[in-house]
Order: sequence, then C-alpha cells, then structure tokens
Amino acid sequence: MAQAVPMVELWRGGLLESRHLGHAVICGPDGQIVQAWGDPGKVIFPRSSCKMLQALPLVESGAADAGGLTDAQLALSCASHQGAALHVGAVDRWLTGLGLHESDLRCGAHEPYDRTERDRLIRGAEAPCQYHNNCSGKHAGMLTWVRHMKAGSEYVEPDHPLQRAIRDAFEATTGENSPGFGIDGCSAPNFATTLLGLARSMAFFANAPDSGDARSRAAYRLTRAMAAHPEFVAGEGRACTELMRAMGGRVALKTGAEAVFIAILPDQGLGIALKIEDGSGRASECAIAALLVSLGALEADHPATRKRLNARQVNWRGIDTGVLAAAPGFPV
Amino acid sequence: MAQAVPMVELWRGGLLESRHLGHAVICGPDGQIVQAWGDPGKVIFPRSSCKMLQALPLVESGAADAGGLTDAQLALSCASHQGAALHVGAVDRWLTGLGLHESDLRCGAHEPYDRTERDRLIRGAEAPCQYHNNCSGKHAGMLTWVRHMKAGSEYVEPDHPLQRAIRDAFEATTGENSPGFGIDGCSAPNFATTLLGLARSMAFFANAPDSGDARSRAAYRLTRAMAAHPEFVAGEGRACTELMRAMGGRVALKTGAEAVFIAILPDQGLGIALKIEDGSGRASECAIAALLVSLGALEADHPATRKRLNARQVNWRGIDTGVLAAAPGFPV
Repeated sequence: MAQAVPMVELWRGGLLESRHLGHAVICGPDGQIVQAWGDPGKVIFPRSSCKMLQALPLVESGAADAGGLTDAQLALSCASHQGAALHVGAVDRWLTGLGLHESDLRCGAHEPYDRTERDRLIRGAEAPCQYHNNCSGKHAGMLTWVRHMKAGSEYVEPDHPLQRAIRDAFEATTGENSPGFGIDGCSAPNFATTLLGLARSMAFFANAPDSGDARSRAAYRLTRAMAAHPEFVAGEGRACTELMRAMGGRVALKTGAEAVFIAILPDQGLGIALKIEDGSGRASECAIAALLVSLGALEADHPATRKRLNARQVNWRGIDTGVLAAAPGFPV
Repeated sequence: MAQAVPMVELWRGGLLESRHLGHAVICGPDGQIVQAWGDPGKVIFPRSSCKMLQALPLVESGAADAGGLTDAQLALSCASHQGAALHVGAVDRWLTGLGLHESDLRCGAHEPYDRTERDRLIRGAEAPCQYHNNCSGKHAGMLTWVRHMKAGSEYVEPDHPLQRAIRDAFEATTGENSPGFGIDGCSAPNFATTLLGLARSMAFFANAPDSGDARSRAAYRLTRAMAAHPEFVAGEGRACTELMRAMGGRVALKTGAEAVFIAILPDQGLGIALKIEDGSGRASECAIAALLVSLGALEADHPATRKRLNARQVNWRGIDTGVLAAAPGFPV
C-alpha cells in the first residue's frame, strides 16, 4: 500500500510552512490506470465529488425528462452551490413546479456561503432555510426522482429505493462493491469506494457516448450540463466554477468535502480522482489545478489557475506573505 | 530527521476519512526534551502562538507598568481575539488612553469571527475596522511600547527597534538564532524557530519565577494574565478560552495560524509546542487536548475537551456522522 505523496506546499518568508499529502488516480477509457500517485486502493468517501453519480438515476430513469428538467437544473442537481440568489431561486421554482415545499427537503439549513445572500438574511433577521444548503439542488433532483417513481418521502434513508438505485449506479461505474457508507452533511448516504473506483467512474463519464444505453446517455448529459453551467455547480469565486470557465466548458469538475476533487475530461477520455489526506480544500484545489495544467487542459497562467496554483498569499493589508504551490515532483 | 507522526483522525461511517500528521515537543525546566513526537528540529513559524513572546519587551521594558496596563490588557496583548464587543471596546479604550487612534494600528482590518459583532456590522452597513483584527490587542501592546520608548510609528517594520527587541527575546528564550522571518497576517514579522526552540521558550515561561530578572518576571506575569483572563485571549466558543477555563487557570494556552499550539504548565514546569504539518486548526486543537489529557492537566470528559477530542461530528440536521479523535498511539 503506497503512502500518500507530497502534493501541495505553503511557503512563507522563504521557508516551508505547511505541507499536504495526497493520493490521485487518472483513468483512461477502459478504466485502466493511466497515472497514479500514492495509493490507488485508498478507500475514501467521495462526498460531494460524486454528485453526478448520485444524479444518474434521476436522468437514467426518465424522471428528468418527464419533469422537463433543463441542463441548468441538471447542473444544479450535481452542485455544491453557495446559496446565492441564483441558486436559491432556482431550487425554489423547481420545488414549486413539483408541487412541493421547502419542508419536503431533507438536507437541513446552513448559512449560505454567498456573501450577498448571507448579508441579506442578516439584515432582514431572516434565518437561512434548506434552499440555502449547498446540496439543495441535489435534493431537488432526488425529489424529482421520488415523485416520478412514486416513492416514499424519506428519500435520504439508506434503504430508500432512490438510495438503492444510487448505490447500484455507484457500484456499476466504480466497478467495486462499496465497503460501506457514511452519512453526509446533507444527511444522504455517501458510499465509500477506492480512489481508483472513483477515477474509473469518472472515466466512464468522460467516455460515455450520447448514443449508448440509458446510463451512458445520462452520464453524457450530466457531464455536458455541468461543464456548460459552471455558475450552477458552485458559484462566483469558487474553484469548480472558475476553473470550468477557464477551460471553456470542455471539462467537468467537482469538489467534495474533506478535500476530494474529480475531473471529467471527455476530449482526452480521462477521469481523475484525488484526495488530500488531511481534508484541506485549499490543497485539493491546488492539486487538481496542477493535474489539469500537466494534462494541457488548463492554462498555468490563467487567473483562475493562479488563484489556486502558485497562488500568492496576501495579508489583510495586501502585503505578499508567501505562496501556495504544488510540491516538487507533483504531478511531474 | 524524524517524519511527522499521525496525530489526529476523522472517522465517518466506521471508516477513516482524513488524517493529520504532526510534530510535538514537551520541554522541562532546563529546556531539555521530556517527550517528543516527529522531528523536534522541524523549523516552523510559531505564528500567533508566540504572542506572549512578542509581548515580553512590553512588560520587561517597564512600558506596561508605566502605562498602568491591567492583567486583562496583558492577556489581550497575547490574544488572537474574535473581535467581539468585549475585545473591540477594550482595544478602543486602550488606544484612546494612549492618545492614539485606530489608524495608528498597522494590523489591517478583517471581518470579526464573533457572530454577534459581525451581524451588528452587517446590519449597520458598517465596515470592520482594525480593532476587529484578531491581533489588535497585540498591536495595542506594541504601540504602548512604542510610546514608552519614543520609537517610530512604523512598528511592524522588521528593523524597527520593537521588532529587534522581540527578536532578542525570541532568540534568548528559544535558545536559537532564528533562521529567518515571515510576514504574518497582521503584517508583523514572525520569526522562525525549531519546534524544540518554541517548546524550550514555553518551558522558560512555565518556570520563570516572580522574583527573577525583568524577563523572568515578565514571563511570569504574562503567563498568569493569560490563564486568568481566557476570555481576552480568544473568545466565547474558542479552544484557547474554553480549554483554559476547563483547566481552572492553571495552564496558559495559545493557538497560532497553520495549526501551531503551545501550552505553558507552571505546576509541572513544562512547555509544549506542536505543529500539524497541514495547517489544520481542528487537528491542532484535538492534538493539544490529547497532550493535556495525557499529562493530567485536562479532564478527558470535560465538555470543552469533548468538543475537540473524541468529538462527535454532527451534520446540519443534528445527525451523528462520525468522530474526530487522536490517532492510535498518540500521545501514548
């Protein structure tokens, strides 16, 4: 079992201050490993990085088409959005269209990451609602499936038909029996897999033809929906949104809590999965940018890249204090 | 050079999700190593964990006494406070007493961590000021020294007499020539040292007699001021404040950015310094709690401990999702 390798370093005053270790796998069309760092067999929770996997049953079942979902809504169903007005409004209209209410969600509420919406709530002495939860788009997608299949309302229970359908899609595309599940921040089960399994699944998405079976067509559509609507996948200022824009819609990206990051590269037929051992988001953002640059998919000097890779650190008075960079030897 | 050792683990659904490696040193009365994990020679930036060191010249020079500083103010001079009304008001009155203004600070402004004060600013469409900076108490202490010594106003410049005095105190108590400095978030220079040097310095604080030379008396007083006024060192809900309260004022604690933590234990004559390699605060809080429990200074079942060590993780709906715990074998 290979050890995690140094992937990201924070430098200050010419000295190394902090360091992040991680594992990463790139898989090709047939699910074979193209390149790997650390331990491909490392068992991880993909967390929100697998939301496109959790959305497969929604599209595959015909529920998305029956409900007339747009690509923007499909992108939102794969999102960890920041609860901006754009996202909150879209989820509100979506649930209203289903004849459902905010209280039908099972994701819980938290303060939105979006500053404008956060400040609006505070000024109005208004509590955040479940629409503000970064997973509310995923849950709206889940409720769309539930309505279409006439399934029960407690859709985050691990033995609910929806979660069983997600597990089937998850295991089929990772090519592994999941060793178990955890409960995510939004209360949905999150199935564990090896990092190789997650990369293999992302390679399935990258290579899925528009003309294949229902699952392939669903994967094709979800990938394009994410890449075409980056503003719905995360939000202004966020890594997924900014980096997808920087790549001009040719790559789908998704972050997950505890420093998981995936990339789907249809042009190259590649799927990437990485996990920083310590769960640091700054490090997973830096490492995925480094991998995308090394594959020629992302420009090293693009502002969205430089915000995360070889990123100058400035303090509260705008003084340069250091740099966040890829570790020597990573990725090449 | 010993590798960092596993110190903290995050578990979810019965599986290991994330892991933090670190280094730690405990030093005794003569600065000798009592126990160490990882590499005692690891060079680190102490960041805010060394604020009591940066406050030594303030007390040692007589500036604190000449200005009539209270122990609460001395605690605030060693603080990374959260910009609550308590802290902002105290710094405001302090500077006013010196005949100075907010604009004389050189720490910069950032949104306060304290929710009540943050929300008050947002509701009033008021921008945060330099008083809200978590380091404003340290800077008020620095300005007190500057006034007393009739030194220049640009007190964060590395060649300012104050910073030279801090470097002297830093090197004398760490027992090392600092290999360099970085610029901190608050713009002050932050001198590098080995982890052993930082632990040795904390042991100096732990063993400094009230009857010794000016530096010893300053260290004695600063240690007692921090331990007696935990609310000024950080704030409600924060690790330093809650854990110092849990230990009944017998131990002084201080966190620093990028996952540094120190402890000063006068009863046992011990000084502790630890650094989590990846810079994660959740991990440094968990690890210092584990060390303090192992030394018998902190109760394992105290609510302040259980919030950080063997801490149940709950999601937005209050569902138990896992646990943050010390890694097997750490500290014993």
